[in-house]
Amino acid sequence: MRLTGPIEIIGTGLLGTSVGLACRRAGFEVLLTDVAAEHVRTASGLGAGRPRRPEDDPQLVVVCVPPALLGDVIANALAASDAVVTDVGSVKSAPLAALGEDVATGRYVGGHPMAGSERSGPLAASASLFDGRPWAVTPGAFARPEAIELVEELAVLCGGVPVRMTPEEHDSAVARISHVPHLMAALMAARLAHAPTDHLALSGQGVRDVTRVAAGDPALYGQIVAGNAPAVVALLGEVREQLDVLIEAVGSADRSRLEELLGEGVEGTRAIPAKHGGPITPMRSVFVSVPDHPGELARLFADAGESGVNVEDVRIDHDPGRPVGLVELVVAADSADHLLTSLESREWVTHR
Amino acid sequence: MRLTGPIEIIGTGLLGTSVGLACRRAGFEVLLTDVAAEHVRTASGLGAGRPRRPEDDPQLVVVCVPPALLGDVIANALAASDAVVTDVGSVKSAPLAALGEDVATGRYVGGHPMAGSERSGPLAASASLFDGRPWAVTPGAFARPEAIELVEELAVLCGGVPVRMTPEEHDSAVARISHVPHLMAALMAARLAHAPTDHLALSGQGVRDVTRVAAGDPALYGQIVAGNAPAVVALLGEVREQLDVLIEAVGSADRSRLEELLGEGVEGTRAIPAKHGGPITPMRSVFVSVPDHPGELARLFADAGESGVNVEDVRIDHDPGRPVGLVELVVAADSADHLLTSLESREWVTHR
Repeated sequence: MRLTGPIEIIGTGLLGTSVGLACRRAGFEVLLTDVAAEHVRTASGLGAGRPRRPEDDPQLVVVCVPPALLGDVIANALAASDAVVTDVGSVKSAPLAALGEDVATGRYVGGHPMAGSERSGPLAASASLFDGRPWAVTPGAFARPEAIELVEELAVLCGGVPVRMTPEEHDSAVARISHVPHLMAALMAARLAHAPTDHLALSGQGVRDVTRVAAGDPALYGQIVAGNAPAVVALLGEVREQLDVLIEAVGSADRSRLEELLGEGVEGTRAIPAKHGGPITPMRSVFVSVPDHPGELARLFADAGESGVNVEDVRIDHDPGRPVGLVELVVAADSADHLLTSLESREWVTHR
Repeated sequence: MRLTGPIEIIGTGLLGTSVGLACRRAGFEVLLTDVAAEHVRTASGLGAGRPRRPEDDPQLVVVCVPPALLGDVIANALAASDAVVTDVGSVKSAPLAALGEDVATGRYVGGHPMAGSERSGPLAASASLFDGRPWAVTPGAFARPEAIELVEELAVLCGGVPVRMTPEEHDSAVARISHVPHLMAALMAARLAHAPTDHLALSGQGVRDVTRVAAGDPALYGQIVAGNAPAVVALLGEVREQLDVLIEAVGSADRSRLEELLGEGVEGTRAIPAKHGGPITPMRSVFVSVPDHPGELARLFADAGESGVNVEDVRIDHDPGRPVGLVELVVAADSADHLLTSLESREWVTHR
């Protein structure tokens, strides 16, 4: 089956409106539905499609509602027409299980684009939100091959990279690379909430990085985590076991056990694939002091650009108490010396 | 007492050599000591000072040796001369306790600059490593006022911002804002070490941030954590208690308890002071798609600079599988719209 449209979007928040914009960009007819009429007006005003009319006959329905509502809305969509139905929810087993073994489940194929924003609502949407992001496609046992194809075609036309896996695999994967990391960040961040101010004054980039995701909306993440409870609890159990080993190792001054645990952490950081998804290139950081006013970063990047070295990542660590920032430029290891020499020749203060 | 020098540095690794470079920059005579003669040669070759001679008479000794050796080296330095002695170790109670109540402890004042690098050794050193960083100064009960002044003067001449606290306060603070975050990152990262490759393919920026610091050297962090065991174990105990509450909340689908725990995490992320150390300015992120080749980031920052908006922080999220990166520019909330409009008028693809 080829995707020809129309494509119906149920739920015109950040993700739904972004899918609509991407489908419109690709020339498809897009029909918008939302319990909040003003969201439909906003999304259609942005060019994400037009309000759905009763006589419309979608080929594909994309359910983009909050996690707790997924099961019901998917079931209703399957009952309402013969369209293929997918969703963009962050857990995949529970909504599928809720459908039971109805023959209609052959038309349902779950999806989960790995994209988002700390903002929400249609105004935060973008046709390019999914550009290059992994988009999990998670057919259940009864899913029809042509329904799977249609959903993978949607992922591709939105700019995503389809990654096919079972719903169970998906939920176990996101527990590990998203839900449990979020909970660990929250557990850590909570320990800072009532710390003395002058203790927190010593904070550096490390604790900021470890806790950053914990700033996410508790209601949304609560729904996400609750919807993936079995996989999350299993992994948290592993964490608890290892935490006990860690407490014992630190408390008994067992340095070799402690180093072993820290070594497993190092191994884990190396297991995360390179951002490009391609082969892992060894990287090195170049540190540069940059005055903290408009134009200085521009000048730094212009000078770095002149050197012909591609900057792969950037971190800025502002100095508390003075208007100078330390900028970390991550570049291919074999380009680092060239970049350093080049920046130094342009009067930048670098830190080798 | 005014700092007039000479200043002796014992241990010419990253930190010792950087202190030497900063003191030389300020015009002081610097004497270098290290068990590894080639480190002294390298450090003096870099301009961090000259090898110490037996007849030298330092005014201030800065001990920059690995954590496990601190106590002994500090005691020897106090016994060897009448100089004031400080150190740059990351734990402060244990070395002081090791000294006992000797009158000489009046000449010892602990220090801890909050600076470092993922690299080590004298070649990674820089006179500006400490620029604007907090530098904890931790006098014990017997420390003489003039010794404290001298150590604070050292912190300032190295570019640091002295933060005075007791050794116990310091150790409790770094357990919270450094050691335990590191251990939590390591615990989380270890869960990724043997995960299936296609699960890890779904990794985004969140899990990368949460685990980044866990890439640090296990031997070094093992020493640091072991030296601060009481404070670390106390805080890990709190984490364990809350982890149990969390497992119970997720396992029993207690959404309100779960949201409460996540809410404490949000509160904690807000407790970390603004990077400038000044009043917290509300920030907003602007997302821009940037082709991944040399010069494009330069063009983006040049265009952002033209808008007159100061970029406070940057994150780059490369798209797996395609040569486009999503760049997040963090700016003052009230400048975000102006920056977006300005970038869009220069043909950048932004994500509102």
